[in-house]
Amino acid sequence: MATATRNVPEIAKRASRGLAAATTEAKDAALGRIAELLHERAREILEANAQDLADERAAGLSEALRDRLTLNEERIAAMADGVREVAALPDPIGEVLVERTLASGLRMRKVRVPLGVIAVVYEARPNVSVDCAALTLKSGNAIVLRGSSYAARSNSALVAVARDAVAETGLPDGSVELLDGAGRSELTELATADGLVDLLIPRGGEGLKEALKAVATVPVMYAAAGNCHVYVHEDADLEMARAVAFNAKVQRPGVCNAAETLLVSASVAKRFLPAILTDLRQAGVELVGDERAREAADGVAIGEAADADWDTEYLGMKMAVGVVDSLPDAIAHVNRHGTGHSEAIVTSSEKAAEAFTEDVDAAVVYVNASTRFTDGFEFGMGAEIGNSTQKLHARGPIGLRELTTFKYVVRGEGQVRD
Amino acid sequence: MATATRNVPEIAKRASRGLAAATTEAKDAALGRIAELLHERAREILEANAQDLADERAAGLSEALRDRLTLNEERIAAMADGVREVAALPDPIGEVLVERTLASGLRMRKVRVPLGVIAVVYEARPNVSVDCAALTLKSGNAIVLRGSSYAARSNSALVAVARDAVAETGLPDGSVELLDGAGRSELTELATADGLVDLLIPRGGEGLKEALKAVATVPVMYAAAGNCHVYVHEDADLEMARAVAFNAKVQRPGVCNAAETLLVSASVAKRFLPAILTDLRQAGVELVGDERAREAADGVAIGEAADADWDTEYLGMKMAVGVVDSLPDAIAHVNRHGTGHSEAIVTSSEKAAEAFTEDVDAAVVYVNASTRFTDGFEFGMGAEIGNSTQKLHARGPIGLRELTTFKYVVRGEGQVRD
Repeated sequence: MATATRNVPEIAKRASRGLAAATTEAKDAALGRIAELLHERAREILEANAQDLADERAAGLSEALRDRLTLNEERIAAMADGVREVAALPDPIGEVLVERTLASGLRMRKVRVPLGVIAVVYEARPNVSVDCAALTLKSGNAIVLRGSSYAARSNSALVAVARDAVAETGLPDGSVELLDGAGRSELTELATADGLVDLLIPRGGEGLKEALKAVATVPVMYAAAGNCHVYVHEDADLEMARAVAFNAKVQRPGVCNAAETLLVSASVAKRFLPAILTDLRQAGVELVGDERAREAADGVAIGEAADADWDTEYLGMKMAVGVVDSLPDAIAHVNRHGTGHSEAIVTSSEKAAEAFTEDVDAAVVYVNASTRFTDGFEFGMGAEIGNSTQKLHARGPIGLRELTTFKYVVRGEGQVRD
Repeated sequence: MATATRNVPEIAKRASRGLAAATTEAKDAALGRIAELLHERAREILEANAQDLADERAAGLSEALRDRLTLNEERIAAMADGVREVAALPDPIGEVLVERTLASGLRMRKVRVPLGVIAVVYEARPNVSVDCAALTLKSGNAIVLRGSSYAARSNSALVAVARDAVAETGLPDGSVELLDGAGRSELTELATADGLVDLLIPRGGEGLKEALKAVATVPVMYAAAGNCHVYVHEDADLEMARAVAFNAKVQRPGVCNAAETLLVSASVAKRFLPAILTDLRQAGVELVGDERAREAADGVAIGEAADADWDTEYLGMKMAVGVVDSLPDAIAHVNRHGTGHSEAIVTSSEKAAEAFTEDVDAAVVYVNASTRFTDGFEFGMGAEIGNSTQKLHARGPIGLRELTTFKYVVRGEGQVRD
């Protein structure tokens, strides 16, 4: 970690060649050792974290960001548990995806292999260092981490744990690297390290995303936020709709699979809206709505929605409410304003469910369930490194398999092409 | 096609929503009609092509590019056959990739769906218009084509065939769009049509690739050229090695899976090189080599390789020849200079074969076979739209499946998250 910034991707690239050939046992041993060391060094880690929190760089942080930066015994134990859970997942590497004898007599195998070097750029939460290192090691990839300057000591202590575990269990030196410099120029170097960084994953807000879009030449997978909708169809079980909409908004409003907009069929707006809007208001949700939603609100406090509201990911206790005339109108609204993350319909009609799931263009489309289920654990994929709203390579939860690629291995006896 | 450039991706996007729901029968009917119309309108197409060839814009073209631009009866028949072959392939859309009941009781299905709108930017060969339209229609995607200005009349005649077939068989209007303007500003508009163009595939040289890298904000898949190697290990069957190396270089030197560099183990260089270098020279291949290759050449004319030769994709009748001391040196050379396309080892050792296939970082790694087999047809994937040297989403031949994504469809009975 004393190396100059520009060498870090090279060091990681060299390590990745050895990691690709590492056995499942060796990788799991490293993860097990990370979990142990997290417990053994909990005091050092908490001291580093306390220094970060006391530092002037952390002085300007919002209360939410300070909370995300803060570590405690429980959070360290949760990190260790998470690492052990990743160790327990099946190793994706070496899986034979296709095996076929070609017309030429060649024997072709399509085999899952690591990507190589994965760079993760993240803000605030130091546990991302450990979560991501565990996922990349298990999938045979080297990782380059680049956290926030105000979390530098915490990240450094956590990455030291991962590096020591790697060294003690015989995985290649350089498998887990932390970038010292956290400035814009280091970010640009990382984002343009063609041939060295095989995938860059930014975990942060729209500002980080836009900055990377402007400069990145290496492949980038955006673990994006979501502008998610719950649509209540005219034949919905309204009690079910009430529970689903409430959960999708309120259960954890700061995450990407929380709902931001409630759409309601005009034919049930008057019957449905007063109850759910009351629930939401009582939970402390600020409401804005279109004209018909406000008319149907029956006295519940609801402001006037501006055009921008339909495109806003509040990531907090606010919700936009709209009334639509038909299922096609609901689908059109979702496709126009959604970010392709998670979208839900509540309906008792199979025909409406089919139209919605077919025509809505999103990673995950729900029928009669909360959008909050979009998650690697919930989907049975194990841990996740984020959720992708892009269509190429990974869509939805980014788990171990999404951190791999494949190669074709073709064997012959001297075949040449005619 | 009379629409202004900026509306074309929007038109295609609208069409893509309908195409995604089109039945296999409807798509295959459209492809069948394209094949018929190609025959019925062969004379019009050839007249348009003759006008392109006679135009002043085609005056400065090289002989090779003029040949690529030229259509004739056989080439039109081959296009029609290609479209019928695509129609005969299984429809990738609707395939259920994963089906699972989650711990929450939710029923999750991961279903293959079209990407949406695919834009293809191409040079010279007008048949690309038809080949790509067939692949995108079969995979349920709308296509926006942007060819060279000097092929404008040929492309227009061919796209008219596809558009008429689409209209006659009831697929959505706008499923096949051709950009009128072929200037740099139209290219930039296409490459920045976020939310409208789901995938941009450039088929052209490094200039096009660099131009797009600088401006593209939509996802791009580079159908890249390849700097491919054949490595002859010390225990290789030298007659097999001679046949493989010759085929990899000479059978079709202008394509991306042709070999550009021959690497030979130092212990067999003197025995192996004179024969293969004689073969290559007699076939008209210009040779350059490192010092030891030239020493072993035994009088065959071979120039001095410059540093740049090891990184050059000649895409023609030239080959660089190098001598390496060991298998690790060969692997290091390939990983340093290769473009991750197709790499071959000739060896009788299982251990060497394993090391090479594991450690070489490329889309396709061959043991005892020519690199020329990297091809969608040869791999049993049907037609291809190009070959990808990137690691994300598609690696190797880009066939029908590589033109798709997936969505998760999750059904419940009102589940909410705790």
